[in-house]
Amino acid sequence: MRIAMVVYDRFTALDVVGPYEILSRLPDVRLDFVAERPGPVRTDTGFLAVTADRALDEVTGPDVVVVAGGPGTFGQLRNPALLEWLRAVDETSTWTTSVCSGSLLLGAAGLLRGRRATSHWAALDLLKEYGAEPTGERVVTDGKYVTAAGVSAGIDMALTLVGRIAGDEHAQAVQLLTEYDPQPPYDAGSPEKAPAHLVAEFRTGGRFSPA
Amino acid sequence: MRIAMVVYDRFTALDVVGPYEILSRLPDVRLDFVAERPGPVRTDTGFLAVTADRALDEVTGPDVVVVAGGPGTFGQLRNPALLEWLRAVDETSTWTTSVCSGSLLLGAAGLLRGRRATSHWAALDLLKEYGAEPTGERVVTDGKYVTAAGVSAGIDMALTLVGRIAGDEHAQAVQLLTEYDPQPPYDAGSPEKAPAHLVAEFRTGGRFSPA
Repeated sequence: MRIAMVVYDRFTALDVVGPYEILSRLPDVRLDFVAERPGPVRTDTGFLAVTADRALDEVTGPDVVVVAGGPGTFGQLRNPALLEWLRAVDETSTWTTSVCSGSLLLGAAGLLRGRRATSHWAALDLLKEYGAEPTGERVVTDGKYVTAAGVSAGIDMALTLVGRIAGDEHAQAVQLLTEYDPQPPYDAGSPEKAPAHLVAEFRTGGRFSPA
Repeated sequence: MRIAMVVYDRFTALDVVGPYEILSRLPDVRLDFVAERPGPVRTDTGFLAVTADRALDEVTGPDVVVVAGGPGTFGQLRNPALLEWLRAVDETSTWTTSVCSGSLLLGAAGLLRGRRATSHWAALDLLKEYGAEPTGERVVTDGKYVTAAGVSAGIDMALTLVGRIAGDEHAQAVQLLTEYDPQPPYDAGSPEKAPAHLVAEFRTGGRFSPA
């Protein structure tokens, strides 16, 4: 089982490190962080760099592809090197997946036409531009395409995938290993649950300046 | 507000990338990944390296310290460079924190004597060797010492800290930004909830070979 985690400048770290932590516990797995060019790739905040051990053109035929999101997504939507690679690996992948705004890259590659998909809540409507049908669910499976909502949703997606790939018992073992028994101290993790003025602040670009 | 995220060879990535993702959204924050030597530091699985931008001796007086856990913890329990640095920064920190087995390092530095603390469930009893009182809670606060349970618990710890540092509303905004509305597909994230035979497998070293 070979897994490619796709990153690029100004991606959001947890988008891929969440799924990495879960998927790397599959049996007989090899997992590669992949970017257009190998080497350190810096995240949206600027405070963290992860190493892409391989260039896109070094990775052919992965079984699972996971595409990160983040503010950097928007700079990649017309990057032919990335979009062509996504189309190529999708021809033979078992699962083609994304977290957060990463689904826009699957969309831009033409892979989500006519499919149900999700994204970060603030990017959800943009999926329509690529012929996808946005849904507000946290993890959306349509055929072999699995998309997750924003940032932390990749953990739930990855556990779902481990269950499909290695069975429920292995997924439970991974959940136990990573002590994934979430107890958030607040209940504001979706636009339906958060105070309305905070949702409005995001939509108008307040509080968190773009990284 | 300056935050130091402490990593070392064979740490567990999500232990620190979870808190990083949350804490990096504090106002006026600077966050550094720190290791004994700067450069790429590889995680427990071998599939991922993150860059430590700074060496321990370059980082003095951080307001918040977050110490990662992972299989590599056990190789650091007698590392004088790390333990002396932890004691030094603890003298002026506002919050001294850990995720997963990272609490054993705080313990080995002598910082948890007589304090309530937690750790990865499989490492919890080891806290007693350092004079700490282990508890099975997910996030434990005792004075300025905040310890989190295994791997994913650092996300809940970090949100708790953001609330204490920047207020409940900012913490809710960060939860919304990271769409942290967990919906695990299984309910096996603690030894109390997981099937008993899986817990037993871990205790005897089965399924997941040491990375």
